[in-house]
Amino acid sequence: MSEDRIRNAALRDRVVPAATAAALIHPGQTVAMSGFTGSGYPKSVPQALAARIEVAHAAGEAFQIRLLTGASTAPELDGALAKVDGIALRLPFQSDPDARRRINDGTLAYIDAHLSHVAQHAWFGFYGDIDVAVVEAVAIREDGSIVPSTSVGNSKTWLDLAKHVIVEVNDWQPAGLEGMHDIYYGTALPPHRRPIPLEHPDDRIGETALRVDPDKIVAVVRTRAPDRNSPFSPVDATSEQIAGHLIEFLRHEVDKGRLPANLLPLQSGVGNIPNAVLAGLAKSGFRDLTAFTEVIQDGMLDLLRSGVLASASCTGFAMSPEANAAFKDEIDFFRRKIILRTQEISNHPELVRRLGCIGMNGMVEVDLYGNINSTHIMGSRMQNGIGGSGDFARNGFMSIFMSPSTAKNGTISSIVPMVSHVDHTEHDVSIIVTEQGLADLRGLSPKQRARQLIDRCAHPDYRDALEDYFERALRDSYGKHTPHLLPEALSWHQRWLDTGDMRPAANPPT
Amino acid sequence: MSEDRIRNAALRDRVVPAATAAALIHPGQTVAMSGFTGSGYPKSVPQALAARIEVAHAAGEAFQIRLLTGASTAPELDGALAKVDGIALRLPFQSDPDARRRINDGTLAYIDAHLSHVAQHAWFGFYGDIDVAVVEAVAIREDGSIVPSTSVGNSKTWLDLAKHVIVEVNDWQPAGLEGMHDIYYGTALPPHRRPIPLEHPDDRIGETALRVDPDKIVAVVRTRAPDRNSPFSPVDATSEQIAGHLIEFLRHEVDKGRLPANLLPLQSGVGNIPNAVLAGLAKSGFRDLTAFTEVIQDGMLDLLRSGVLASASCTGFAMSPEANAAFKDEIDFFRRKIILRTQEISNHPELVRRLGCIGMNGMVEVDLYGNINSTHIMGSRMQNGIGGSGDFARNGFMSIFMSPSTAKNGTISSIVPMVSHVDHTEHDVSIIVTEQGLADLRGLSPKQRARQLIDRCAHPDYRDALEDYFERALRDSYGKHTPHLLPEALSWHQRWLDTGDMRPAANPPT
Repeated sequence: MSEDRIRNAALRDRVVPAATAAALIHPGQTVAMSGFTGSGYPKSVPQALAARIEVAHAAGEAFQIRLLTGASTAPELDGALAKVDGIALRLPFQSDPDARRRINDGTLAYIDAHLSHVAQHAWFGFYGDIDVAVVEAVAIREDGSIVPSTSVGNSKTWLDLAKHVIVEVNDWQPAGLEGMHDIYYGTALPPHRRPIPLEHPDDRIGETALRVDPDKIVAVVRTRAPDRNSPFSPVDATSEQIAGHLIEFLRHEVDKGRLPANLLPLQSGVGNIPNAVLAGLAKSGFRDLTAFTEVIQDGMLDLLRSGVLASASCTGFAMSPEANAAFKDEIDFFRRKIILRTQEISNHPELVRRLGCIGMNGMVEVDLYGNINSTHIMGSRMQNGIGGSGDFARNGFMSIFMSPSTAKNGTISSIVPMVSHVDHTEHDVSIIVTEQGLADLRGLSPKQRARQLIDRCAHPDYRDALEDYFERALRDSYGKHTPHLLPEALSWHQRWLDTGDMRPAANPPT
Repeated sequence: MSEDRIRNAALRDRVVPAATAAALIHPGQTVAMSGFTGSGYPKSVPQALAARIEVAHAAGEAFQIRLLTGASTAPELDGALAKVDGIALRLPFQSDPDARRRINDGTLAYIDAHLSHVAQHAWFGFYGDIDVAVVEAVAIREDGSIVPSTSVGNSKTWLDLAKHVIVEVNDWQPAGLEGMHDIYYGTALPPHRRPIPLEHPDDRIGETALRVDPDKIVAVVRTRAPDRNSPFSPVDATSEQIAGHLIEFLRHEVDKGRLPANLLPLQSGVGNIPNAVLAGLAKSGFRDLTAFTEVIQDGMLDLLRSGVLASASCTGFAMSPEANAAFKDEIDFFRRKIILRTQEISNHPELVRRLGCIGMNGMVEVDLYGNINSTHIMGSRMQNGIGGSGDFARNGFMSIFMSPSTAKNGTISSIVPMVSHVDHTEHDVSIIVTEQGLADLRGLSPKQRARQLIDRCAHPDYRDALEDYFERALRDSYGKHTPHLLPEALSWHQRWLDTGDMRPAANPPT
């Protein structure tokens, strides 16, 4: 029998069923929860709250909350609350099918925000008061401090600002997580801010648990439930080609003396392409790499095991069920290699700039001049959100954006005349990679970028049409700095909406 | 007779005419010059170089350089070199009519960059080698170090990296500038960067002159010529209304406890509207304000005199001739109040975030969802560049963008369905101000932002048309998160290109 996870006697007395805790949340309140990329989110109270909201709605009563988290969560949180139309406003990130559907039918208000901005905007009062915080924990210590589970996200800020706190202690999460966290308590509001004393990605600058005023804890709920832990797809040929181009480029930069032999701290988005990049790095010959990133996924655990990666700093995990099982087995090893920080620190402009992170993220589309759309399908439909990609693209050493050159069976080109929404401007984009090749946009003017992107990244099915648009824009555009033909600039997207295919060949002139 | 400005004997021996110095610059070279917003740029060597290029071109010889500066310069530099088609590539900012014409006819390649990125990208090798640096100085000290004049910009980096250095010592610049500069020598390349020890906008953290290896100085040129010093327009009614809305908002934020009584360090763009805001602050009752900004213009000098502004940190000046004359007379006072820094420091993400700067900048247009175009007329024609607006909009406490609600005699609306180019995304924009009113976009979803912008900022001539677009987009858009009708999204711009008027009423359906 393991030691009780709740080591503070007073708080042991506040253990209640999830429904009792959920009853402490009221219509119209702003509720801030833990959770980042499907890890470390509360599992029980949100579902109990959803049940309560469903009952209220059935009785004709209005009941919605404003919901803040670290980043995306899971069906038990975003899904459950979205399904019962219980969310009036959601921020700063989501990836849930039920929430997404409501965002895009216009019934769920969503604020897509840079993840490094959220904690300070809450402190600045830009989101109003925070009524209740709900955070998942591995344990509550004797002194009432809270050991977070598999993510930290914004939990420090939520506990600091919320009037009331509900803690879910999840026995499923390994007790060995304790000691892996690093919670920095040196932040302040301007004009009282001081330099953050972090100089290397593996520096520890804080405490291993979250402080909280025990009097604010109104309920403790026991749970035993897994994180989201979705499987990754096996590495496919396209992802492998993208990874190959990228790793060849990194080697080239080391050869040219523009990067150290062990590179600079890596930030990696989550998904199958980043996982392929990590798999490629495992075989690349690179050693002693570091990661200063948001999320650790399967591939990064492998790199830590093999020593290719010396350490990894993050604010959450995205593991497959198999990787999670192995992670639990080897947690004493990983606790020496991994540091879990608040997302204010993992994504902090000061630190991303100082460390010189290499940002590697996916994209929806890029245009001829290097502007990136990370979020909106056909300019209006939200996919997930910008997440931390902007924190790293803007303030890091260089920004790399990756995607297959086409989507939806070739009916969509990832390189378009003009992106239908901009998340990263031409000023913030260094490198584009598709399975076709890599475009190095550094030190290039807009028109030089267009040539690179057409020649190296576009799919052959779209190359002639891009070239044709570009040549006609060069001839007929109002200004020739960023040549565009406005009536055509977004016509590829409209063609897809009208016909299901961006390819001009599939739509001969009539 | 004043003391000689060249106090190093060896360098006194290297004084040559401008033409002799210009002869040291060769075709195809990368030449990095001082200069920021029409202050502190070399005046004589660029003109001599332009004359030399003209002769070469007349003889049928190719002669162009790649030209880097701090920011914009003046007719003697950008203008002279552009007129003779002497610039192959220009970065990171310009505002010169002759350069702009060539950028927009497609013959001058231009890279528009965040001003905080330039020095580090040069160090990273993204722009290739720097062959020659040409910097203006107030004096050369006994030890060969160089006292910059009215701007610092990227001069530190240029002197560090260039193979050869040409110094222009300008007797027109007041000797009393010596001691006003603060050149920080603690920067490094990652992974060797450390925290920048600046905690208050008036902290001095560096040296008062630029270090340079005297052996690299191949020529010294004496000049006696004024900075650009363009007059500001008198404050007009529109600018005064914009300033009034903004100052009312700042008071409101202080009342709500979201800003300290003396606000937070102000960053202000350059131009007539910012000057009106500064004039408004003079009468506002605010005291002990600080500025952590790029450029000090007339209005800020007045605020320093009156004590409304306690101190100002910048990297250059933009003064009217009258303000410049007064500045020279009172330079001993201003040397205690003003700190001139490198633009790497004045715009540094670490410092802008730590200090919590309030960014106040102009814009070309904003769309319904809060995306900002700062640079491109009708999506393709470059006006000036993004400058430092992004450094402050992204990393500061809040970002404020200001513009009259219409331009060109009412034929252009500054609020449009979709901006034709994006420099600042929806994620980076807090407040929009026109003479019509102020829209506070903080904590709002895209559709909520649209309502605010239509109701509070749009000109009455365009309000119905914006409302009509928004309502139809709400009904018919593919996704309802950021509703758009792609065939119409850029039609206002095309209508202006076709008819000279964006107003639908001026273009009745035919």
